[in-house]
Amino acid sequence: MNRLKIGVIGAGRIGKIHAENIARFIPQAELAGIADIKLTEEQTTWAKNLGAGIVSKNPEDLLKDSSIEAILICSSTDTHADFVIAASEAKKHIFCEKPIDLTVPKVKQALEAANKAGVKLQIGFNRRFDHNFARIREYTKAGDIGDVHIVKITSRDPAPPPAEYVAVSGGIFMDMAIHDFDMARFQAGSDITEVYAAGAVLVDPAIGKAGDIDTALVTLRFANGAIGVIDNSRKAVYGYDQRVEVFGSKGAATAENDMPNTVRLLNDKGVTGEKPLYFFLERYNQAFIDEMAAFIDAVQNNKTLAVTGEDGLEDMYAALAAGKSLKEKRPVTIEEIRAAY
Amino acid sequence: MNRLKIGVIGAGRIGKIHAENIARFIPQAELAGIADIKLTEEQTTWAKNLGAGIVSKNPEDLLKDSSIEAILICSSTDTHADFVIAASEAKKHIFCEKPIDLTVPKVKQALEAANKAGVKLQIGFNRRFDHNFARIREYTKAGDIGDVHIVKITSRDPAPPPAEYVAVSGGIFMDMAIHDFDMARFQAGSDITEVYAAGAVLVDPAIGKAGDIDTALVTLRFANGAIGVIDNSRKAVYGYDQRVEVFGSKGAATAENDMPNTVRLLNDKGVTGEKPLYFFLERYNQAFIDEMAAFIDAVQNNKTLAVTGEDGLEDMYAALAAGKSLKEKRPVTIEEIRAAY
Amino acid sequence: MNRLKIGVIGAGRIGKIHAENIARFIPQAELAGIADIKLTEEQTTWAKNLGAGIVSKNPEDLLKDSSIEAILICSSTDTHADFVIAASEAKKHIFCEKPIDLTVPKVKQALEAANKAGVKLQIGFNRRFDHNFARIREYTKAGDIGDVHIVKITSRDPAPPPAEYVAVSGGIFMDMAIHDFDMARFQAGSDITEVYAAGAVLVDPAIGKAGDIDTALVTLRFANGAIGVIDNSRKAVYGYDQRVEVFGSKGAATAENDMPNTVRLLNDKGVTGEKPLYFFLERYNQAFIDEMAAFIDAVQNNKTLAVTGEDGLEDMYAALAAGKSLKEKRPVTIEEIRAAY
Amino acid sequence: MNRLKIGVIGAGRIGKIHAENIARFIPQAELAGIADIKLTEEQTTWAKNLGAGIVSKNPEDLLKDSSIEAILICSSTDTHADFVIAASEAKKHIFCEKPIDLTVPKVKQALEAANKAGVKLQIGFNRRFDHNFARIREYTKAGDIGDVHIVKITSRDPAPPPAEYVAVSGGIFMDMAIHDFDMARFQAGSDITEVYAAGAVLVDPAIGKAGDIDTALVTLRFANGAIGVIDNSRKAVYGYDQRVEVFGSKGAATAENDMPNTVRLLNDKGVTGEKPLYFFLERYNQAFIDEMAAFIDAVQNNKTLAVTGEDGLEDMYAALAAGKSLKEKRPVTIEEIRAAY
Repeated sequence: MNRLKIGVIGAGRIGKIHAENIARFIPQAELAGIADIKLTEEQTTWAKNLGAGIVSKNPEDLLKDSSIEAILICSSTDTHADFVIAASEAKKHIFCEKPIDLTVPKVKQALEAANKAGVKLQIGFNRRFDHNFARIREYTKAGDIGDVHIVKITSRDPAPPPAEYVAVSGGIFMDMAIHDFDMARFQAGSDITEVYAAGAVLVDPAIGKAGDIDTALVTLRFANGAIGVIDNSRKAVYGYDQRVEVFGSKGAATAENDMPNTVRLLNDKGVTGEKPLYFFLERYNQAFIDEMAAFIDAVQNNKTLAVTGEDGLEDMYAALAAGKSLKEKRPVTIEEIRAAY
Repeated sequence: MNRLKIGVIGAGRIGKIHAENIARFIPQAELAGIADIKLTEEQTTWAKNLGAGIVSKNPEDLLKDSSIEAILICSSTDTHADFVIAASEAKKHIFCEKPIDLTVPKVKQALEAANKAGVKLQIGFNRRFDHNFARIREYTKAGDIGDVHIVKITSRDPAPPPAEYVAVSGGIFMDMAIHDFDMARFQAGSDITEVYAAGAVLVDPAIGKAGDIDTALVTLRFANGAIGVIDNSRKAVYGYDQRVEVFGSKGAATAENDMPNTVRLLNDKGVTGEKPLYFFLERYNQAFIDEMAAFIDAVQNNKTLAVTGEDGLEDMYAALAAGKSLKEKRPVTIEEIRAAY
Repeated sequence: MNRLKIGVIGAGRIGKIHAENIARFIPQAELAGIADIKLTEEQTTWAKNLGAGIVSKNPEDLLKDSSIEAILICSSTDTHADFVIAASEAKKHIFCEKPIDLTVPKVKQALEAANKAGVKLQIGFNRRFDHNFARIREYTKAGDIGDVHIVKITSRDPAPPPAEYVAVSGGIFMDMAIHDFDMARFQAGSDITEVYAAGAVLVDPAIGKAGDIDTALVTLRFANGAIGVIDNSRKAVYGYDQRVEVFGSKGAATAENDMPNTVRLLNDKGVTGEKPLYFFLERYNQAFIDEMAAFIDAVQNNKTLAVTGEDGLEDMYAALAAGKSLKEKRPVTIEEIRAAY
Repeated sequence: MNRLKIGVIGAGRIGKIHAENIARFIPQAELAGIADIKLTEEQTTWAKNLGAGIVSKNPEDLLKDSSIEAILICSSTDTHADFVIAASEAKKHIFCEKPIDLTVPKVKQALEAANKAGVKLQIGFNRRFDHNFARIREYTKAGDIGDVHIVKITSRDPAPPPAEYVAVSGGIFMDMAIHDFDMARFQAGSDITEVYAAGAVLVDPAIGKAGDIDTALVTLRFANGAIGVIDNSRKAVYGYDQRVEVFGSKGAATAENDMPNTVRLLNDKGVTGEKPLYFFLERYNQAFIDEMAAFIDAVQNNKTLAVTGEDGLEDMYAALAAGKSLKEKRPVTIEEIRAAY
């Protein structure tokens, strides 16, 4: 089989990660090109060293190149939907970083374009590929947990983003918890039907002034009858806290954080180990590789995608429902959100 | 100092535990008498072997004995409040098993009687004395966790009670989760102000027919701004699951389950340890002793009680709020409940 | 069945523990009497409060009392053997604290007396009853570990005894490691055949001056072909370190230390738990009860003892072989030691 | 700084790992050439894809290329020493896989050549770079453990090599435990002075017939007074078992195995996690990268090497002493081995 030729739009942090992962770890694919509208000299050198054939400031150069079969959209969020549409029209398979857009109509438009074009569209919910969380899902799918009753997700960042970022990010539910809504649906094996959100500003008053919260508890109801809860904080001083627990009729599976090493120091103060891996780049390092390999495999072998554009839309409904619940202090159904668009 | 003379009303399971703990482990106290209106021959022998001076079918015999300084109320729930009132009038300090009563007015009446009599009244929320949970609280009080942001409590029983019991128990919130409401207030160091409950019947349809749920997620708001969540299940096949996590501005503290031993078996299947300790008698064995020792110490040395009758009432408000929230599908404030009585 | 009437000789620390355990936790037995040649007023009060019928300065009072069926020997080590002999002659079953004596001939004499009298003689190797170590042995006996290949024992005290004690204790192998030799034989399910000891004075030079070592590694060979190693230190600043690992053809089982609680504190410094339980009284608290219950059960129901006088002698041979190995810098067989007596 | 140009001799398993690691992960270096006397077409393609400028069947092509500054020796063991000598003469820095040779004189000859030429020579004891073991060493160096008293190393392979391999491998001490001797010296921060080895054939009789053992316990004495023990098995059914413990005057540090994930499954059978990572490629994946990066850094910046040729020789002495100890059933000093050459 020929290597899948991939073009990457956006050479920022996440674009670089994907491009390097393809070049280094995925022999089934070829990094055919990289485009970034603000391409720097440094990025150009980096791209060429990685072996990219096309290095350009014009994403069009990738879209119009007939040899390129798949496009990775790693540009700024407000451009995602348009690139999805353009890549769909160019009949290229698409891997798009989350979120597709911050507005439902735009997301729908993008999904329609991809569906109409018959191209595959995977969204960058990388955590489904985390070795811990994927293992829990395997247990559930194998029947080891029985019927799922309760899904618990802890998701806390090591440090809050600047308040200015918060203001434009879409808020904690759209920007941060959306990963957790996706994880919840993934682990429950079922869509979310209702959301109740309790939130508070406990970390940084500036976040409150920016109209957002920094601490949240979100209760979930799933279509299969299970219930769930997500707890979020913008600041865990001990590092990135990413844990999942699935409890069911036959048992439970829990995933603890990944640690930098297994060493424990025993002395007259107690028994001490290190903090969890600092942040998502460390923790989900391998998951970024695995999500890309899965996308490439799905395209090359016409397999079902692990995370679809529809998943992205469902996750977004949950985030919107959470926002509304917080504001209106009542549980909000997904149906209510869906009907609004 | 003389040993505190204690009379125990009720020689059922919990009465026996307390009586034996006093006789064996608490040299500061003396088991002066045991009364049970249905006293059997076996119970009589047991009580005499324990060295109880008075062994009687009439609790009055303990209340009217002027040498007895404290009364333990371990009889059936519907008699608790009346015994609290009677013991108060007899000017005896009181340790009363939870709940004082299933109705608010009766509880208030009991509290008033104790307050008026100036006797101490401790409620049997033994989990505050658990070595794990007490340790977390110590960390919080020492400032190691900073301001409390999130309290998480997992509380799952190994097997559901019979549906007939469920029908008269007051329901999952009043019967089971009330311990968790108390733990939540204890760990947050603050009263609950609002409750939102999501529940489901996932374990046993008979529980649903009895008008109760068997699986619940309860979101809490505390007066100090913290938020919290309790998850309950009537059936965890791997045993009694009792965990607490407190997350704050300076860190977090987590308590895992107690295990019967530290042994792990490594073989070609994986690494296996045993299930958690089976149920509350095993898990809270030492906590039952420690709560009693604390009560006796508070009485003898006129110290502040660790769990007061007012705590019992606050916990009850939370349980009632949870029940109302579940029924009306909305968050319910404690204020709303309080105002109703 | 009648309760087994027990007389305890020696009301020091360990004698008190056993007496209290019998009185509190073992309804199958009765604390019939306590004798101590240096009985204080305080001990007398304590003994009477425990319900001991005979409280005396003369151990003879217990030995000659025909109602007493079993004797616990908890006096000073140099009197053990003589009391074993006297109790044997009085036809009483015997539980004797370790060691029976510091000299082989005296031990043999005691064993002969007990054997001749047909009384049961259990030695106080309480660690066989530890919940962790007993669980490992169960796995091995159940075949879960297959053939035993390697036995590893870590045994470190929190603080060294005074150098004066070391001088009369029989040394680290006879005083401290003898528990580990017994554990090694217990876990291997086989007798030791050869010992090689490497030692050093690293904790306290005074121990070296007293002619002993404070740090040791002892390699063991067992009759069944397995090999093993014990590491000892007189001082682990983090507390009592008691771990066992058994490795075999089908797997391995490991036992970690017991901890005071399961709490972990997570902050910017790392993840911290408490030190292991401080010393043997805390760690082997329940094992002391269980060894006594096993002795009483064996006597009452004529069962095989869990630890016999012969075990005590074998363990002693291992300790002597270790001492000789250290001195002569060569492996020493148990056969060589045995032949010397 | 220019990228260090490296030539790799030997394109077998370990050669491939190093070459790929350089190409992918170490931007400071450049994979200038690869030579293998049995170079296949597949290896040629692989080497060219990695960007190697020289791809040859003749190692001479690398040695004589004046632009190449460092040579990696990953060929068969019997050729190591000669390549060290040749590379030294060509004034190239050297990274040589362990062991340099199975005979002391040949090793000495190689070390002399490197010393004389003034080139750096690092030996492939990759485990010093393991995240767990390196962390323990950091604690020790920082003084957190105080004076080292006891070093314990567990090193067990998941499955034995074929008996034919065993026959030519130099035996368990030279082939397998040599890594552990190196780890022991690394963790003790001191050279080994005496060795006592106890061994057995418990895994596979064919290994015994081949004149080797498959299970071993090796007691070590270090120059700084510490003592240590290594336990080896050729077959741990639960996977690769690589643990280290360093115990000292101020505390201890322990390293557990690395696991594939943190997930635990709780059900009515117990609490189960997965087996440790299967073998050295999985466990020491990152350590292989880190040892290479350290070598390149040492060469480029003229730093002290983390593992020298002299380390390799000392480790070899320990292996020879262990073999002699096993055969002659007595402790053997390193001095005795050293004096024999």
